[in-house]
Amino acid sequence: MSNPVQLTIVGSIGIDTVETPLDKRVDILGGSASFACIAASYFTQTGMVGVVGTDFPEKYRSCYIDAGIDIEGLQVEEGQTFRWSGVYEQNMDVRRTLSTELNVFEHFSPEMPAAYINSPYLLLGNISPELQLHVLNQIADPQFVMADTMDLWINISRPKLVELIERVTMLTINESEARKLTEEHSLVKAAREIMRMGPQYVLIKKGEHGSMLFSGEHICLLPAFPLGDVVDPTGAGDTFAGALMGALAAGGKADEAGLRQAMIYGTVVASFGVQDFSVDRLLALTKEEIESRATLYRSMLC
Amino acid sequence: MSNPVQLTIVGSIGIDTVETPLDKRVDILGGSASFACIAASYFTQTGMVGVVGTDFPEKYRSCYIDAGIDIEGLQVEEGQTFRWSGVYEQNMDVRRTLSTELNVFEHFSPEMPAAYINSPYLLLGNISPELQLHVLNQIADPQFVMADTMDLWINISRPKLVELIERVTMLTINESEARKLTEEHSLVKAAREIMRMGPQYVLIKKGEHGSMLFSGEHICLLPAFPLGDVVDPTGAGDTFAGALMGALAAGGKADEAGLRQAMIYGTVVASFGVQDFSVDRLLALTKEEIESRATLYRSMLC
Repeated sequence: MSNPVQLTIVGSIGIDTVETPLDKRVDILGGSASFACIAASYFTQTGMVGVVGTDFPEKYRSCYIDAGIDIEGLQVEEGQTFRWSGVYEQNMDVRRTLSTELNVFEHFSPEMPAAYINSPYLLLGNISPELQLHVLNQIADPQFVMADTMDLWINISRPKLVELIERVTMLTINESEARKLTEEHSLVKAAREIMRMGPQYVLIKKGEHGSMLFSGEHICLLPAFPLGDVVDPTGAGDTFAGALMGALAAGGKADEAGLRQAMIYGTVVASFGVQDFSVDRLLALTKEEIESRATLYRSMLC
Repeated sequence: MSNPVQLTIVGSIGIDTVETPLDKRVDILGGSASFACIAASYFTQTGMVGVVGTDFPEKYRSCYIDAGIDIEGLQVEEGQTFRWSGVYEQNMDVRRTLSTELNVFEHFSPEMPAAYINSPYLLLGNISPELQLHVLNQIADPQFVMADTMDLWINISRPKLVELIERVTMLTINESEARKLTEEHSLVKAAREIMRMGPQYVLIKKGEHGSMLFSGEHICLLPAFPLGDVVDPTGAGDTFAGALMGALAAGGKADEAGLRQAMIYGTVVASFGVQDFSVDRLLALTKEEIESRATLYRSMLC
């Protein structure tokens, strides 16, 4: 018997093709659940909820198992796995999506394994708010629910997104999406507006410029870890969210101080993740490397 | 007799016309020396080096005097004061210069007043490196020299800029300029390359995303103060530099810990500065407001 699942993560699982100014990789493992679960696996027993097609390579499935992730919630459906391809331009500052094929993801409607139902922590990765609500409804009594979203859902599914936001402990959203959701240019005002919609915490991701945690009237600012080189930024936000929730579950204190410590781990693990394509650097990580960089990062916050 | 000048600041003094998405102001006080000196005046006895034309309004001259700035180094030359006009677009993210008239600034070749020659702190605001060197050569034995620069000088005056950089304690430069100067995309590599050129410290300004202080192998990261609304970002970098150098001079400890404290004041005073046009908010500041926001800001760095 495996350990009880502390953190349930739902998200996409994809086969990506990624082109950067320096390199190109075809058919690599991607998807928000892949990045988030592997990142979280360094901290806590993580259960993955997602769907792949019958074409999903065994070697990628092994990545999850080797990382110690509970994949009872990973469904295999007849057909092709979700596929995404994109290109990074102008020194990685601009990402352009070349193609998206939903494939088996289109009709995904997951049932939670019994082992996941009592998990105290839940990360609703960036998928449709309808699907996020469907998962949330199946978790018995989550202690802390974090949801990620993106501009697509603000555009095409705002009422469901609002319904979801009402019920989460923390919404994580990037700068431009926070502005779009609230029609407030100021991030401070946007975050306060989102908190009025329900969440106790709002975490605004600023990519290579760090993150901001809003909690009532208090704001906590975290700069990003400065990297010499970024190889592939794909999945950085998902990695950040996964490590954050994993560290939060491991720390056992879902208060503001616990969140700040968890954000430090999110920042650090995400900084490793972008140093190689796909989940390659994440899979090769050790706890010692994470702790060592966390110590270095804390010294930079001096 | 006034107090001995602790901090000498040289820079431009201009009459600006600034247009933002919400408002437009004509013939307002601007220039790097104006912002930097007024910001520094809250911390230390500051001497201004600059030039204006005979058209320079008496009310603007009074701003300096009322702020307690020593203006013995402020020359008045026959002709028109330097003029700049610009427009901020796309929610303040893009600045476009509409016109620049050098006027009396074109042949400016300042002589230091005797009271400035022994000032221990020197801020060489963003003017030509030739002029920065001309001022540096007249200060007897400065303890800490900070220089600001911009892409223009990297383009048209690189050899003189390199000569200057060799001789300063700290270079402050923005992200894109650091990349341009060193041809390194990574800010970490760029900063290390600049340190190899001479300065003990490199301070990279990231505008609304904060700043990074490099000192040997150590990096100190400071996020920007999050503001509800920005009215006019003109002069924010100069305000940051002026308050930083003022606080450094007042603290009397020009080491890394002292610099970090000074950067906090730089960040805070700059955050006030952008809340109104020109130097209006800076002139209305009190020490209590600065300390109160510095305390709030430190709590955000939690």
